[in-house]
Amino acid sequence: MEKRIQLRGKTLGDPAQPLICTPIIGRTQKEILQELTHVTAKKPDLIEWRADFFDKIENTDEVIALAKRIRENAGDIPVIFTNRSQREGGQPIPLSEKEILEMYIEICKNTAADIIDFELSNRLEHLRYLRKVSHDAGLKMIMSYHHFESTPSQDVLMKKLLEAEACGADIAKAAVMPKTLKDVLTLLNVTYEGNKKLNIPLITISMGGYGTLTRMFGGVFGSCVTFAVGENSSAPGQIPIEDLKTVLNIVQKSMID
Amino acid sequence: MEKRIQLRGKTLGDPAQPLICTPIIGRTQKEILQELTHVTAKKPDLIEWRADFFDKIENTDEVIALAKRIRENAGDIPVIFTNRSQREGGQPIPLSEKEILEMYIEICKNTAADIIDFELSNRLEHLRYLRKVSHDAGLKMIMSYHHFESTPSQDVLMKKLLEAEACGADIAKAAVMPKTLKDVLTLLNVTYEGNKKLNIPLITISMGGYGTLTRMFGGVFGSCVTFAVGENSSAPGQIPIEDLKTVLNIVQKSMID
Repeated sequence: MEKRIQLRGKTLGDPAQPLICTPIIGRTQKEILQELTHVTAKKPDLIEWRADFFDKIENTDEVIALAKRIRENAGDIPVIFTNRSQREGGQPIPLSEKEILEMYIEICKNTAADIIDFELSNRLEHLRYLRKVSHDAGLKMIMSYHHFESTPSQDVLMKKLLEAEACGADIAKAAVMPKTLKDVLTLLNVTYEGNKKLNIPLITISMGGYGTLTRMFGGVFGSCVTFAVGENSSAPGQIPIEDLKTVLNIVQKSMID
Repeated sequence: MEKRIQLRGKTLGDPAQPLICTPIIGRTQKEILQELTHVTAKKPDLIEWRADFFDKIENTDEVIALAKRIRENAGDIPVIFTNRSQREGGQPIPLSEKEILEMYIEICKNTAADIIDFELSNRLEHLRYLRKVSHDAGLKMIMSYHHFESTPSQDVLMKKLLEAEACGADIAKAAVMPKTLKDVLTLLNVTYEGNKKLNIPLITISMGGYGTLTRMFGGVFGSCVTFAVGENSSAPGQIPIEDLKTVLNIVQKSMID
Protein backbone atom coordinates (compact mmCIF):
# COMPACT_ATOMS: atom_id res chain seq x y z
CA MET A 1 0.00 0.00 0.00
CA GLU A 2 2.84 2.41 0.80
CA LYS A 3 3.85 1.90 -2.82
CA ARG A 4 1.09 4.21 -3.96
CA ILE A 5 1.81 7.82 -4.78
CA GLN A 6 -0.92 10.45 -4.63
CA LEU A 7 -0.67 13.24 -7.19
CA ARG A 8 -3.40 15.84 -7.62
CA GLY A 9 -6.08 13.30 -6.78
CA LYS A 10 -4.61 10.53 -8.95
CA THR A 11 -3.18 7.35 -7.46
CA LEU A 12 0.00 6.13 -9.11
CA GLY A 13 0.76 2.52 -8.24
CA ASP A 14 -2.74 1.05 -7.91
CA PRO A 15 -2.39 -2.36 -9.59
CA ALA A 16 -6.05 -2.33 -10.62
CA GLN A 17 -5.76 1.02 -12.36
CA PRO A 18 -2.71 1.92 -14.45
CA LEU A 19 -2.52 5.61 -15.29
CA ILE A 20 -2.50 6.76 -18.90
CA CYS A 21 0.18 9.28 -19.79
CA THR A 22 0.23 11.22 -23.06
CA PRO A 23 3.42 12.87 -24.28
CA ILE A 24 3.74 16.42 -25.59
CA ILE A 25 6.39 16.64 -28.29
CA GLY A 26 5.86 19.97 -30.06
CA ARG A 27 8.94 21.95 -31.20
CA THR A 28 7.83 25.55 -30.76
CA GLN A 29 6.07 27.10 -27.80
CA LYS A 30 2.98 27.62 -29.94
CA GLU A 31 2.91 23.99 -31.09
CA ILE A 32 3.48 22.76 -27.55
CA LEU A 33 0.66 24.81 -26.04
CA GLN A 34 -1.72 23.83 -28.85
CA GLU A 35 -0.81 20.16 -28.38
CA LEU A 36 -1.39 20.55 -24.66
CA THR A 37 -4.88 21.94 -25.29
CA HIS A 38 -5.77 19.01 -27.55
CA VAL A 39 -4.24 16.46 -25.21
CA THR A 40 -5.83 17.71 -21.99
CA ALA A 41 -9.22 17.54 -23.73
CA LYS A 42 -8.70 13.78 -24.00
CA LYS A 43 -8.34 13.57 -20.22
CA PRO A 44 -5.18 11.53 -19.76
CA ASP A 45 -4.18 10.79 -16.16
CA LEU A 46 -0.72 12.25 -16.69
CA ILE A 47 1.06 14.42 -19.23
CA GLU A 48 4.74 14.14 -20.08
CA TRP A 49 6.45 17.15 -21.58
CA ARG A 50 9.34 15.86 -23.64
CA ALA A 51 11.45 19.01 -23.36
CA ASP A 52 14.17 17.60 -25.64
CA PHE A 53 11.84 18.39 -28.59
CA PHE A 54 11.61 22.09 -27.59
CA ASP A 55 13.47 24.39 -30.00
CA LYS A 56 14.56 26.71 -27.16
CA ILE A 57 15.85 23.94 -24.90
CA GLU A 58 19.22 25.70 -24.56
CA ASN A 59 17.56 28.69 -22.84
CA THR A 60 16.71 27.55 -19.32
CA ASP A 61 14.62 30.66 -18.59
CA GLU A 62 12.41 29.87 -21.58
CA VAL A 63 12.18 26.21 -20.54
CA ILE A 64 11.12 27.13 -17.02
CA ALA A 65 8.62 29.73 -18.21
CA LEU A 66 7.05 27.26 -20.63
CA ALA A 67 7.11 24.41 -18.09
CA LYS A 68 5.22 26.66 -15.68
CA ARG A 69 2.60 27.45 -18.31
CA ILE A 70 2.21 23.77 -19.14
CA ARG A 71 1.90 22.97 -15.44
CA GLU A 72 -0.75 25.67 -15.06
CA ASN A 73 -2.69 24.79 -18.20
CA ALA A 74 -2.68 21.10 -17.31
CA GLY A 75 -4.97 21.88 -14.37
CA ASP A 76 -5.42 18.80 -12.21
CA ILE A 77 -3.41 16.56 -14.57
CA PRO A 78 0.06 15.92 -13.11
CA VAL A 79 2.93 16.79 -15.46
CA ILE A 80 6.16 14.84 -15.93
CA PHE A 81 9.13 16.91 -17.09
CA THR A 82 11.47 14.82 -19.22
CA ASN A 83 14.62 15.56 -21.15
CA ARG A 84 15.24 12.27 -22.94
CA SER A 85 18.89 12.01 -23.94
CA GLN A 86 19.82 11.16 -27.49
CA ARG A 87 21.54 7.96 -26.35
CA GLU A 88 18.22 6.77 -24.90
CA GLY A 89 16.00 7.69 -27.81
CA GLY A 90 15.63 11.45 -27.36
CA GLN A 91 16.38 14.41 -29.62
CA PRO A 92 19.88 15.81 -30.05
CA ILE A 93 20.20 18.97 -27.95
CA PRO A 94 23.08 21.44 -27.52
CA LEU A 95 23.36 21.11 -23.72
CA SER A 96 26.12 19.49 -21.68
CA GLU A 97 25.29 17.00 -18.93
CA LYS A 98 25.94 19.69 -16.37
CA GLU A 99 23.64 22.15 -18.12
CA ILE A 100 20.92 19.50 -18.30
CA LEU A 101 21.30 18.87 -14.59
CA GLU A 102 21.01 22.61 -13.94
CA MET A 103 17.84 22.76 -16.03
CA TYR A 104 16.32 19.95 -13.97
CA ILE A 105 17.35 21.72 -10.75
CA GLU A 106 15.57 24.88 -11.89
CA ILE A 107 12.45 22.88 -12.79
CA CYS A 108 12.43 21.55 -9.24
CA LYS A 109 13.16 24.86 -7.53
CA ASN A 110 10.35 26.49 -9.54
CA THR A 111 8.02 23.51 -9.01
CA ALA A 112 7.41 23.74 -12.73
CA ALA A 113 6.30 20.07 -12.90
CA ASP A 114 4.97 17.35 -10.59
CA ILE A 115 7.43 14.64 -11.57
CA ILE A 116 10.82 14.64 -13.21
CA ASP A 117 12.18 11.77 -15.29
CA PHE A 118 15.98 11.53 -15.08
CA GLU A 119 17.92 8.67 -16.65
CA LEU A 120 19.68 6.07 -14.57
CA SER A 121 22.62 6.31 -16.98
CA ASN A 122 23.41 9.76 -15.58
CA ARG A 123 26.38 10.10 -13.25
CA LEU A 124 25.63 8.80 -9.79
CA GLU A 125 26.43 12.11 -8.12
CA HIS A 126 24.02 13.89 -10.46
CA LEU A 127 21.30 11.35 -9.70
CA ARG A 128 21.86 11.74 -5.97
CA TYR A 129 22.05 15.51 -6.06
CA LEU A 130 18.91 15.87 -8.16
CA ARG A 131 17.19 13.37 -5.90
CA LYS A 132 17.86 15.65 -2.96
CA VAL A 133 16.79 18.80 -4.80
CA SER A 134 13.58 17.26 -6.14
CA HIS A 135 12.77 15.82 -2.73
CA ASP A 136 13.23 19.20 -1.06
CA ALA A 137 11.02 20.83 -3.69
CA GLY A 138 8.32 18.17 -3.39
CA LEU A 139 8.67 16.77 -6.90
CA LYS A 140 8.55 13.01 -7.47
CA MET A 141 11.41 11.49 -9.40
CA ILE A 142 11.34 8.73 -12.02
CA MET A 143 14.68 7.10 -12.71
CA SER A 144 14.53 5.56 -16.15
CA TYR A 145 16.31 3.08 -18.35
CA HIS A 146 15.77 2.71 -22.12
CA HIS A 147 17.08 0.25 -24.64
CA PHE A 148 15.90 0.81 -28.21
CA GLU A 149 17.85 -2.02 -29.78
CA SER A 150 16.78 -5.08 -27.86
CA THR A 151 15.44 -6.52 -24.61
CA PRO A 152 18.20 -7.24 -22.10
CA SER A 153 17.95 -10.39 -20.00
CA GLN A 154 15.59 -10.57 -17.07
CA ASP A 155 18.56 -10.29 -14.69
CA VAL A 156 19.85 -7.11 -16.32
CA LEU A 157 16.40 -5.53 -16.34
CA MET A 158 15.80 -6.43 -12.70
CA LYS A 159 19.18 -4.96 -11.80
CA LYS A 160 18.21 -1.67 -13.45
CA LEU A 161 14.97 -1.47 -11.49
CA LEU A 162 16.73 -2.30 -8.22
CA GLU A 163 19.40 0.27 -9.03
CA ALA A 164 16.73 2.95 -9.44
CA GLU A 165 15.27 2.07 -6.06
CA ALA A 166 18.70 2.06 -4.46
CA CYS A 167 19.35 5.56 -5.87
CA GLY A 168 16.19 6.82 -4.18
CA ALA A 169 13.79 6.88 -7.13
CA ASP A 170 10.10 7.32 -6.33
CA ILE A 171 9.30 5.36 -9.49
CA ALA A 172 11.54 3.03 -11.54
CA LYS A 173 11.03 2.92 -15.31
CA ALA A 174 12.36 0.56 -17.97
CA ALA A 175 11.47 0.74 -21.68
CA VAL A 176 13.01 -1.82 -24.02
CA MET A 177 12.61 -3.10 -27.57
CA PRO A 178 11.46 -6.68 -28.19
CA LYS A 179 12.79 -8.66 -31.13
CA THR A 180 10.41 -11.54 -30.52
CA LEU A 181 7.26 -12.22 -28.53
CA LYS A 182 9.49 -14.03 -26.08
CA ASP A 183 11.05 -10.65 -25.22
CA VAL A 184 7.56 -9.34 -24.47
CA LEU A 185 7.07 -12.19 -21.99
CA THR A 186 10.46 -11.42 -20.43
CA LEU A 187 9.40 -7.82 -19.87
CA LEU A 188 6.09 -8.88 -18.31
CA ASN A 189 7.88 -11.39 -16.12
CA VAL A 190 10.33 -8.76 -14.86
CA THR A 191 7.39 -6.48 -14.16
CA TYR A 192 5.64 -9.16 -12.13
CA GLU A 193 8.77 -10.22 -10.22
CA GLY A 194 9.97 -6.63 -9.84
CA ASN A 195 6.76 -5.66 -8.13
CA LYS A 196 7.34 -8.34 -5.55
CA LYS A 197 10.94 -7.25 -4.98
CA LEU A 198 10.73 -3.45 -5.06
CA ASN A 199 8.97 -1.11 -2.69
CA ILE A 200 8.37 1.60 -5.30
CA PRO A 201 5.96 1.64 -8.26
CA LEU A 202 7.28 0.50 -11.63
CA ILE A 203 6.72 1.63 -15.19
CA THR A 204 7.74 -1.02 -17.71
CA ILE A 205 7.30 -0.93 -21.45
CA SER A 206 8.04 -3.20 -24.31
CA MET A 207 8.14 -0.92 -27.37
CA GLY A 208 7.31 -1.39 -31.06
CA GLY A 209 4.64 -3.60 -32.63
CA TYR A 210 4.91 -6.64 -30.38
CA GLY A 211 5.37 -4.45 -27.34
CA THR A 212 2.03 -2.76 -27.93
CA LEU A 213 0.61 -5.62 -25.88
CA THR A 214 2.43 -4.42 -22.77
CA ARG A 215 0.95 -0.95 -23.21
CA MET A 216 -2.48 -2.59 -22.96
CA PHE A 217 -1.93 -5.41 -20.47
CA GLY A 218 1.25 -4.43 -18.61
CA GLY A 219 -0.82 -2.79 -15.89
CA VAL A 220 -2.14 -6.18 -14.80
CA PHE A 221 1.43 -7.38 -14.29
CA GLY A 222 2.31 -4.26 -12.30
CA SER A 223 3.30 -1.41 -14.61
CA CYS A 224 1.63 1.64 -13.10
CA VAL A 225 1.77 4.00 -16.10
CA THR A 226 1.12 3.34 -19.78
CA PHE A 227 1.93 5.88 -22.50
CA ALA A 228 -0.60 6.60 -25.21
CA VAL A 229 -0.91 8.95 -28.13
CA GLY A 230 -2.93 12.08 -27.43
CA GLU A 231 -1.89 13.94 -30.53
CA ASN A 232 1.62 12.65 -31.28
CA SER A 233 3.60 9.55 -30.43
CA SER A 234 6.89 9.85 -28.55
CA ALA A 235 8.01 6.22 -28.86
CA PRO A 236 7.29 3.25 -31.15
CA GLY A 237 4.21 1.20 -30.31
CA GLN A 238 2.14 3.84 -28.55
CA ILE A 239 -1.54 3.59 -29.47
CA PRO A 240 -4.28 6.24 -29.42
CA ILE A 241 -5.54 7.10 -25.94
CA GLU A 242 -9.13 6.33 -27.01
CA ASP A 243 -8.20 2.75 -28.00
CA LEU A 244 -6.14 2.27 -24.85
CA LYS A 245 -9.00 3.44 -22.62
CA THR A 246 -11.38 1.05 -24.38
CA VAL A 247 -9.08 -1.93 -23.87
CA LEU A 248 -8.23 -1.05 -20.26
CA ASN A 249 -11.91 -0.77 -19.40
CA ILE A 250 -12.63 -4.20 -20.86
CA VAL A 251 -9.57 -5.74 -19.18
CA GLN A 252 -10.54 -4.32 -15.79
CA LYS A 253 -14.16 -5.38 -16.12
CA SER A 254 -13.20 -8.87 -17.35
CA MET A 255 -10.73 -9.62 -14.60
CA ILE A 256 -13.20 -8.67 -11.88
CA ASP A 257 -15.96 -10.88 -13.31
CA MET B 1 1.45 -22.21 -44.02
CA GLU B 2 0.34 -25.83 -44.12
CA LYS B 3 -0.70 -25.31 -40.51
CA ARG B 4 -3.80 -23.45 -41.63
CA ILE B 5 -7.13 -25.25 -41.82
CA GLN B 6 -9.90 -24.00 -44.10
CA LEU B 7 -13.46 -24.50 -42.81
CA ARG B 8 -16.47 -23.05 -44.61
CA GLY B 9 -14.47 -20.01 -45.70
CA LYS B 10 -12.82 -19.46 -42.32
CA THR B 11 -9.09 -19.91 -41.80
CA LEU B 12 -8.13 -21.61 -38.56
CA GLY B 13 -4.48 -21.10 -37.71
CA ASP B 14 -3.83 -17.65 -39.14
CA PRO B 15 -1.63 -16.04 -36.47
CA ALA B 16 -2.93 -12.58 -37.34
CA GLN B 17 -6.56 -13.59 -36.89
CA PRO B 18 -7.64 -15.87 -34.06
CA LEU B 19 -11.15 -17.23 -34.51
CA ILE B 20 -13.83 -16.51 -31.92
CA CYS B 21 -15.84 -19.52 -30.78
CA THR B 22 -19.02 -19.27 -28.73
CA PRO B 23 -20.31 -22.26 -26.77
CA ILE B 24 -23.89 -23.53 -26.74
CA ILE B 25 -24.77 -25.01 -23.37
CA GLY B 26 -28.57 -25.30 -23.28
CA ARG B 27 -30.13 -28.37 -21.58
CA THR B 28 -33.24 -29.00 -23.65
CA GLN B 29 -33.54 -29.08 -27.42
CA LYS B 30 -35.68 -25.94 -27.27
CA GLU B 31 -33.13 -24.07 -25.15
CA ILE B 32 -30.29 -25.21 -27.38
CA LEU B 33 -31.94 -24.10 -30.61
CA GLN B 34 -32.93 -20.76 -29.09
CA GLU B 35 -29.40 -20.22 -27.82
CA LEU B 36 -28.09 -21.08 -31.29
CA THR B 37 -30.33 -18.43 -32.86
CA HIS B 38 -29.09 -15.79 -30.44
CA VAL B 39 -25.49 -16.83 -30.80
CA THR B 40 -25.37 -17.00 -34.60
CA ALA B 41 -26.79 -13.47 -34.70
CA LYS B 42 -23.60 -12.33 -32.99
CA LYS B 43 -21.55 -13.79 -35.85
CA PRO B 44 -18.90 -15.83 -34.06
CA ASP B 45 -16.35 -17.56 -36.29
CA LEU B 46 -17.10 -20.94 -34.72
CA ILE B 47 -19.77 -22.51 -32.53
CA GLU B 48 -19.12 -25.28 -30.03
CA TRP B 49 -22.01 -27.44 -29.01
CA ARG B 50 -21.26 -28.74 -25.53
CA ALA B 51 -23.38 -31.89 -25.81
CA ASP B 52 -22.66 -32.93 -22.22
CA PHE B 53 -25.21 -30.29 -21.16
CA PHE B 54 -27.96 -31.89 -23.33
CA ASP B 55 -30.65 -33.62 -21.27
CA LYS B 56 -31.04 -36.41 -23.85
CA ILE B 57 -27.33 -37.16 -24.16
CA GLU B 58 -27.92 -40.86 -23.48
CA ASN B 59 -30.02 -41.18 -26.64
CA THR B 60 -27.59 -41.15 -29.53
CA ASP B 61 -30.34 -40.81 -32.15
CA GLU B 62 -31.56 -37.64 -30.48
CA VAL B 63 -28.02 -36.33 -30.20
CA ILE B 64 -27.36 -36.93 -33.90
CA ALA B 65 -30.69 -35.43 -34.95
CA LEU B 66 -30.07 -32.31 -32.88
CA ALA B 67 -26.42 -32.06 -33.98
CA LYS B 68 -27.61 -32.11 -37.59
CA ARG B 69 -30.11 -29.33 -36.91
CA ILE B 70 -27.44 -27.27 -35.19
CA ARG B 71 -25.08 -27.89 -38.11
CA GLU B 72 -27.77 -26.81 -40.56
CA ASN B 73 -28.94 -23.78 -38.60
CA ALA B 74 -25.37 -22.61 -38.07
CA GLY B 75 -25.15 -21.91 -41.82
CA ASP B 76 -21.60 -21.00 -42.78
CA ILE B 77 -20.37 -21.06 -39.17
CA PRO B 78 -18.37 -24.24 -38.53
CA VAL B 79 -19.59 -26.30 -35.54
CA ILE B 80 -17.46 -28.12 -32.99
CA PHE B 81 -19.12 -31.11 -31.34
CA THR B 82 -17.83 -31.60 -27.81
CA ASN B 83 -18.69 -33.96 -25.01
CA ARG B 84 -16.61 -32.59 -22.16
CA SER B 85 -16.06 -35.30 -19.55
CA GLN B 86 -16.80 -34.59 -15.91
CA ARG B 87 -13.15 -35.18 -14.99
CA GLU B 88 -12.17 -32.32 -17.34
CA GLY B 89 -14.82 -29.84 -16.28
CA GLY B 90 -17.91 -31.16 -18.09
CA GLN B 91 -21.34 -32.26 -16.87
CA PRO B 92 -21.97 -35.70 -15.35
CA ILE B 93 -23.61 -37.93 -17.98
CA PRO B 94 -24.86 -41.51 -17.83
CA LEU B 95 -22.72 -42.85 -20.69
CA SER B 96 -19.79 -45.24 -20.53
CA GLU B 97 -16.55 -44.44 -22.33
CA LYS B 98 -17.48 -46.91 -25.01
CA GLU B 99 -20.92 -45.32 -25.48
CA ILE B 100 -19.33 -41.87 -25.71
CA LEU B 101 -16.96 -43.16 -28.37
CA GLU B 102 -19.90 -44.61 -30.29
CA MET B 103 -21.71 -41.27 -30.11
CA TYR B 104 -18.66 -39.52 -31.57
CA ILE B 105 -18.43 -42.15 -34.31
CA GLU B 106 -22.05 -41.52 -35.28
CA ILE B 107 -21.45 -37.76 -35.31
CA CYS B 108 -18.64 -38.36 -37.79
CA LYS B 109 -20.48 -40.85 -39.95
CA ASN B 110 -23.44 -38.45 -40.18
CA THR B 111 -21.16 -35.43 -40.70
CA ALA B 112 -23.25 -33.81 -38.01
CA ALA B 113 -20.46 -31.33 -37.16
CA ASP B 114 -17.32 -29.86 -38.76
CA ILE B 115 -14.94 -30.56 -35.92
CA ILE B 116 -14.98 -32.92 -32.97
CA ASP B 117 -13.22 -32.27 -29.67
CA PHE B 118 -12.09 -35.50 -27.99
CA GLU B 119 -9.97 -35.51 -24.86
CA LEU B 120 -6.37 -36.68 -24.86
CA SER B 121 -7.09 -38.50 -21.60
CA ASN B 122 -9.19 -41.02 -23.54
CA ARG B 123 -7.72 -44.47 -24.16
CA LEU B 124 -5.15 -44.42 -26.91
CA GLU B 125 -7.00 -47.01 -28.99
CA HIS B 126 -10.16 -44.86 -28.82
CA LEU B 127 -8.24 -41.77 -29.85
CA ARG B 128 -6.67 -43.62 -32.77
CA TYR B 129 -9.89 -45.25 -33.89
CA LEU B 130 -11.88 -42.00 -33.76
CA ARG B 131 -9.06 -40.26 -35.57
CA LYS B 132 -9.47 -42.73 -38.44
CA VAL B 133 -13.26 -42.45 -38.48
CA SER B 134 -13.25 -38.66 -38.36
CA HIS B 135 -10.61 -38.50 -41.04
CA ASP B 136 -12.59 -40.78 -43.33
CA ALA B 137 -15.71 -38.68 -42.75
CA GLY B 138 -13.88 -35.40 -43.37
CA LEU B 139 -14.27 -33.99 -39.85
CA LYS B 140 -11.37 -32.22 -38.20
CA MET B 141 -10.37 -33.43 -34.76
CA ILE B 142 -9.26 -31.42 -31.75
CA MET B 143 -7.48 -33.41 -29.06
CA SER B 144 -7.81 -31.54 -25.82
CA TYR B 145 -6.35 -31.36 -22.33
CA HIS B 146 -7.94 -29.50 -19.39
CA HIS B 147 -6.73 -28.83 -15.89
CA PHE B 148 -9.15 -26.87 -13.71
CA GLU B 149 -7.05 -26.87 -10.55
CA SER B 150 -3.75 -25.37 -11.61
CA THR B 151 -1.29 -24.73 -14.42
CA PRO B 152 1.12 -27.63 -14.93
CA SER B 153 4.74 -26.85 -15.73
CA GLN B 154 5.77 -25.72 -19.16
CA ASP B 155 7.29 -29.16 -19.82
CA VAL B 156 4.08 -30.99 -18.94
CA LEU B 157 1.99 -28.66 -21.08
CA MET B 158 4.33 -28.98 -24.03
CA LYS B 159 4.23 -32.76 -23.68
CA LYS B 160 0.43 -32.70 -23.88
CA LEU B 161 0.49 -30.65 -27.08
CA LEU B 162 3.12 -32.89 -28.65
CA GLU B 163 1.12 -35.94 -27.61
CA ALA B 164 -1.95 -34.58 -29.41
CA GLU B 165 0.08 -34.09 -32.57
CA ALA B 166 1.59 -37.57 -32.26
CA CYS B 167 -1.93 -39.03 -31.98
CA GLY B 168 -2.88 -37.37 -35.25
CA ALA B 169 -4.85 -34.39 -33.99
CA ASP B 170 -5.65 -31.66 -36.50
CA ILE B 171 -5.63 -29.16 -33.63
CA ALA B 172 -4.13 -29.47 -30.13
CA LYS B 173 -5.92 -27.75 -27.24
CA ALA B 174 -4.87 -27.08 -23.66
CA ALA B 175 -6.96 -25.17 -21.10
CA VAL B 176 -5.55 -24.71 -17.62
CA MET B 177 -6.21 -22.68 -14.47
CA PRO B 178 -3.69 -20.07 -13.31
CA LYS B 179 -3.10 -19.44 -9.63
CA THR B 180 -0.85 -16.46 -10.29
CA LEU B 181 -0.02 -14.15 -13.17
CA LYS B 182 3.16 -16.16 -13.53
CA ASP B 183 1.01 -19.11 -14.61
CA VAL B 184 -0.51 -16.90 -17.30
CA LEU B 185 2.98 -16.16 -18.62
CA THR B 186 3.80 -19.89 -18.54
CA LEU B 187 0.76 -20.62 -20.71
CA LEU B 188 1.69 -17.88 -23.18
CA ASN B 189 5.24 -19.12 -23.31
CA VAL B 190 4.11 -22.68 -24.06
CA THR B 191 1.87 -21.29 -26.77
CA TYR B 192 4.74 -19.41 -28.35
CA GLU B 193 7.21 -22.29 -28.10
CA GLY B 194 4.58 -24.87 -29.05
CA ASN B 195 3.87 -23.05 -32.27
CA LYS B 196 7.50 -23.32 -33.22
CA LYS B 197 7.63 -27.02 -32.36
CA LEU B 198 4.30 -28.33 -33.66
CA ASN B 199 3.02 -28.54 -37.21
CA ILE B 200 -0.64 -28.23 -36.25
CA PRO B 201 -2.61 -25.21 -34.97
CA LEU B 202 -2.93 -24.79 -31.21
CA ILE B 203 -5.69 -23.60 -28.94
CA THR B 204 -4.40 -22.59 -25.51
CA ILE B 205 -6.34 -21.01 -22.69
CA SER B 206 -5.58 -19.80 -19.23
CA MET B 207 -8.95 -19.78 -17.45
CA GLY B 208 -10.46 -17.66 -14.66
CA GLY B 209 -9.89 -13.99 -13.90
CA TYR B 210 -6.17 -13.75 -14.60
CA GLY B 211 -6.53 -16.03 -17.60
CA THR B 212 -8.97 -13.64 -19.24
CA LEU B 213 -5.88 -11.95 -20.63
CA THR B 214 -5.04 -15.03 -22.72
CA ARG B 215 -8.52 -14.99 -24.22
CA MET B 216 -7.79 -11.46 -25.47
CA PHE B 217 -4.17 -11.64 -26.56
CA GLY B 218 -3.30 -15.35 -26.67
CA GLY B 219 -3.88 -15.16 -30.41
CA VAL B 220 -0.77 -13.04 -30.82
CA PHE B 221 1.27 -15.81 -29.19
CA GLY B 222 -0.28 -18.44 -31.42
CA SER B 223 -3.58 -19.65 -30.00
CA CYS B 224 -5.85 -19.93 -33.04
CA VAL B 225 -9.24 -19.98 -31.29
CA THR B 226 -10.56 -17.96 -28.37
CA PHE B 227 -13.83 -18.78 -26.61
CA ALA B 228 -16.27 -16.00 -25.81
CA VAL B 229 -19.72 -15.72 -24.34
CA GLY B 230 -22.51 -15.46 -26.90
CA GLU B 231 -25.34 -16.09 -24.49
CA ASN B 232 -23.81 -18.33 -21.81
CA SER B 233 -20.33 -19.07 -20.54
CA SER B 234 -18.98 -22.62 -20.64
CA ALA B 235 -15.79 -22.04 -18.65
CA PRO B 236 -14.49 -19.48 -16.14
CA GLY B 237 -13.01 -16.30 -17.57
CA GLN B 238 -14.89 -16.16 -20.87
CA ILE B 239 -15.90 -12.61 -21.75
CA PRO B 240 -18.74 -11.32 -23.97
CA ILE B 241 -18.11 -11.73 -27.68
CA GLU B 242 -18.72 -8.00 -28.23
CA ASP B 243 -15.93 -7.05 -25.80
CA LEU B 244 -13.59 -9.66 -27.25
CA LYS B 245 -14.15 -8.40 -30.81
CA THR B 246 -13.47 -4.84 -29.68
CA VAL B 247 -10.18 -5.80 -28.03
CA LEU B 248 -9.05 -8.07 -30.88
CA ASN B 249 -9.68 -5.30 -33.41
CA ILE B 250 -7.58 -2.85 -31.41
CA VAL B 251 -4.81 -5.42 -30.82
CA GLN B 252 -4.65 -6.26 -34.53
CA LYS B 253 -4.68 -2.63 -35.62
CA SER B 254 -2.07 -1.67 -33.02
CA MET B 255 0.39 -4.38 -33.88
CA ILE B 256 0.33 -3.52 -37.58
CA ASP B 257 0.96 0.19 -36.96
